[in-house]
Amino acid sequence: MPAFPPIFQFQLQELFRLRRDVRRFLPDPVPEDLFTELLEAAHHAPSVGLSQPWRFVRVDDPARRQAVVDEFQRANDAASARYDSERARLYRSLKLAGLREAPIHLLVCVETDPDSGHGLGRQTQPETLRDSAVCAIQNLWLTARAKGVGVGWVSILEPERLRAVMDLPPTWGWVGYLCIGWPQEEPEIPVLEIAGWDHRNPLAKHLLQR
Amino acid sequence: MPAFPPIFQFQLQELFRLRRDVRRFLPDPVPEDLFTELLEAAHHAPSVGLSQPWRFVRVDDPARRQAVVDEFQRANDAASARYDSERARLYRSLKLAGLREAPIHLLVCVETDPDSGHGLGRQTQPETLRDSAVCAIQNLWLTARAKGVGVGWVSILEPERLRAVMDLPPTWGWVGYLCIGWPQEEPEIPVLEIAGWDHRNPLAKHLLQR
Repeated sequence: MPAFPPIFQFQLQELFRLRRDVRRFLPDPVPEDLFTELLEAAHHAPSVGLSQPWRFVRVDDPARRQAVVDEFQRANDAASARYDSERARLYRSLKLAGLREAPIHLLVCVETDPDSGHGLGRQTQPETLRDSAVCAIQNLWLTARAKGVGVGWVSILEPERLRAVMDLPPTWGWVGYLCIGWPQEEPEIPVLEIAGWDHRNPLAKHLLQR
Repeated sequence: MPAFPPIFQFQLQELFRLRRDVRRFLPDPVPEDLFTELLEAAHHAPSVGLSQPWRFVRVDDPARRQAVVDEFQRANDAASARYDSERARLYRSLKLAGLREAPIHLLVCVETDPDSGHGLGRQTQPETLRDSAVCAIQNLWLTARAKGVGVGWVSILEPERLRAVMDLPPTWGWVGYLCIGWPQEEPEIPVLEIAGWDHRNPLAKHLLQR
């Protein structure tokens, strides 16, 4: 396979390095054609057996959005109780959700029983269906960053408490709830690192040989 | 956040479109520094609460590699039995594993109890740890393709049957077994699509509004 140009290879690593989990958004709308480009990028993710199990739910209804905000607040309060007071203050100060500000809410789901792919490659590891949907999110996230758009993945909520609100088809599993919009900030390193929450490990800590 | 140049944005979509699951490899070795660049790209994936839970196991031992080949063959035979004879023939003809040819075998795991991140964001959805490791695989895969290197993800095996062989730390979960090397072929569309296994859906089939 022909390699891509060296400048592209370099910029791709810059893209990985500069991609952020964005929590503060400007109110400006994201143009529809740009949003479609993000979905098209996601739709070109790898998938087990070409099953293409990613499903996208654009959440526009104000009552449904509010239900997500409420659930985030409940789960966030519960999570904060786990930490000692200093960490808890830091935790709350991180403003973990841009749920109120982001113009686009996108729930990414996985079809757990897809027609496509005829079951290939997922008899032994059904979790690879969800993995495929996660790759779709990563494609979307990288494309957004390349275009200057911010994405935040909100994982502090219990999907089971929101299934009914979202009226999801019964075979759809919850993968990630994304906030999408133009970012207020342009941090070069993760907000959690800036806030002193943790730091990036040396790669060697992550390697074994067998 | 400043957007990346338009030419990069275009090439990034080309990268998504041309990334393939590679199953046939040349015997030529992958230089060590290039392999390290792939791992560095993976190490810059997003992770829930900055937990960086990806762990990499480079599998060089011939006996361990053979155990993976054997398990693939067992699982592949079992999977083929599910399909009618024509599909079964096609299935076998797809040469789903480049396990024997690929110079590098890399097992990607997830640390299910990482020190990093202090548990942030994964109390309600612990599966987001695995999601982070999957994003690391996708970064590695895209970087490999940009450099002309091929990656194949082998999901047709039962991880539980290989845990002991790999002598994994008890808190490490199996995510993906990757074959890495220089590809024999340069298909522009997925091998499964060429083989008539399935085709890419229109995006509209994947969208709901709520």
